Amino acid sequence: MRTIHVIGIGAGDPDQLTLQAVKALRRTDVFFILDKGEAKSDLVRLRRDILDAHVPQGTYRLVEARDPERDRSAGGAAYSPAVGDWRSARADIYERLIAEELGEDESGAFLVWGDPALYDSTLGVLEEILERGTVAFAYDVVPGISSVSALVARHRTGLNRVARPVQITTGRRLAEGFPEGVDDVVVMLDAHQAFQRYADEDIDIYWGAYIGTPDEILDSGPLAEAGPRIERLRAEARERKGWIMDTYLLRRNPRGGEG
Amino acid sequence: MRTIHVIGIGAGDPDQLTLQAVKALRRTDVFFILDKGEAKSDLVRLRRDILDAHVPQGTYRLVEARDPERDRSAGGAAYSPAVGDWRSARADIYERLIAEELGEDESGAFLVWGDPALYDSTLGVLEEILERGTVAFAYDVVPGISSVSALVARHRTGLNRVARPVQITTGRRLAEGFPEGVDDVVVMLDAHQAFQRYADEDIDIYWGAYIGTPDEILDSGPLAEAGPRIERLRAEARERKGWIMDTYLLRRNPRGGEG
Repeated sequence: MRTIHVIGIGAGDPDQLTLQAVKALRRTDVFFILDKGEAKSDLVRLRRDILDAHVPQGTYRLVEARDPERDRSAGGAAYSPAVGDWRSARADIYERLIAEELGEDESGAFLVWGDPALYDSTLGVLEEILERGTVAFAYDVVPGISSVSALVARHRTGLNRVARPVQITTGRRLAEGFPEGVDDVVVMLDAHQAFQRYADEDIDIYWGAYIGTPDEILDSGPLAEAGPRIERLRAEARERKGWIMDTYLLRRNPRGGEG
Repeated sequence: MRTIHVIGIGAGDPDQLTLQAVKALRRTDVFFILDKGEAKSDLVRLRRDILDAHVPQGTYRLVEARDPERDRSAGGAAYSPAVGDWRSARADIYERLIAEELGEDESGAFLVWGDPALYDSTLGVLEEILERGTVAFAYDVVPGISSVSALVARHRTGLNRVARPVQITTGRRLAEGFPEGVDDVVVMLDAHQAFQRYADEDIDIYWGAYIGTPDEILDSGPLAEAGPRIERLRAEARERKGWIMDTYLLRRNPRGGEG
């Protein structure tokens, strides 16, 4: 039976690999590396560096493929169907890779930035392939340090305050309104700085980009002051590198409360 | 200057240590191990096993202390103050440990289960000590695989569904009502199986106890069916081991929706 390891490789710092991830890398015959195009070739290189550092050369094969283009123009209600189409296109590619590039008793791996459990499509794509029933495989998941954990560790703060909840959401959702019932909100996939909308509220922001890599940028403070700084840092970094991966925590202070 | 490392050591599987955590362990002169009493001595032993596996004997000192008792009888509105008192009591102990057991140029470490960012008091306690100003130290945080990440990896599912948010909260909060605006909720620190309240809703539960350890127990399914099973498993395990650490994800299915 073919086996697939879905391996969380941390947020960018190669030392954020777990021992479990290193062992899974060394048990892998074929690594599938999906290229999102020129802009993110840094990320492909980082993955190769991880393999070079931890897996003896000659013990594995590397299979590269091009990720399908995602229709990012579709907004609002059209978002989920667009994601669905894209996921199916990705499933087509993964299905072919698993069927054609992986021998019957071999193991393949997908290396996922951060934690495969957070805003990553790999598990959903594998389930979709299994439902199609055209190629059989077993799979397991190696959890990774998410960019969320890495962010707050660098800021030396917690995700939640004592006995209180935290929500993890997207920039798109935050743009629609501050989530109900929580004052601590982690925002991922925010291409449009949705935090700007809340600049007049008593909120602290803890922001980071390229966390754990040599390009890491951190900033934090009251949103009214830190927000404009972060917009500039973000625009400059994006211009310089051609792409950006960033995450932030918004921490709203209770009205006249404990802090 | 004294240095403190707050090291996330994963949810229970020693292989969930990151390479960064192993390096931090090896840079540490003094490990502070807080004992919560007989019931959790398994956890103290697991910490010692991690040290034995990764740090050469004779290169560090181990300092053990007894954690203050927490007043768990205080319910409702009294919860936060009770936690505050307990945190100050803990700060007294940590302050003394750092001042008396750590040389001026030495580094100490606290080993935290899971991720120091999630429902752990260590960072808050260290900040409280620094505010007191009686002992100076620098500190850094090494993120760890949280029990949340470990849980969903074992169930091979994601924390969020496509483009949707996830909330992490406590059993106490869940008992007050299902969080607003989310259908995916991770529950920690639930001593009273608050999920029971939602047994008649269309919710799937993904539950795990002692995740990543040889005692690991997993269960999942529609809440109406899996809930009673989990109650039994939980009671038996607690009886057998004297303590339990468990976490779960509740995934509510949208009414007549996509699934």
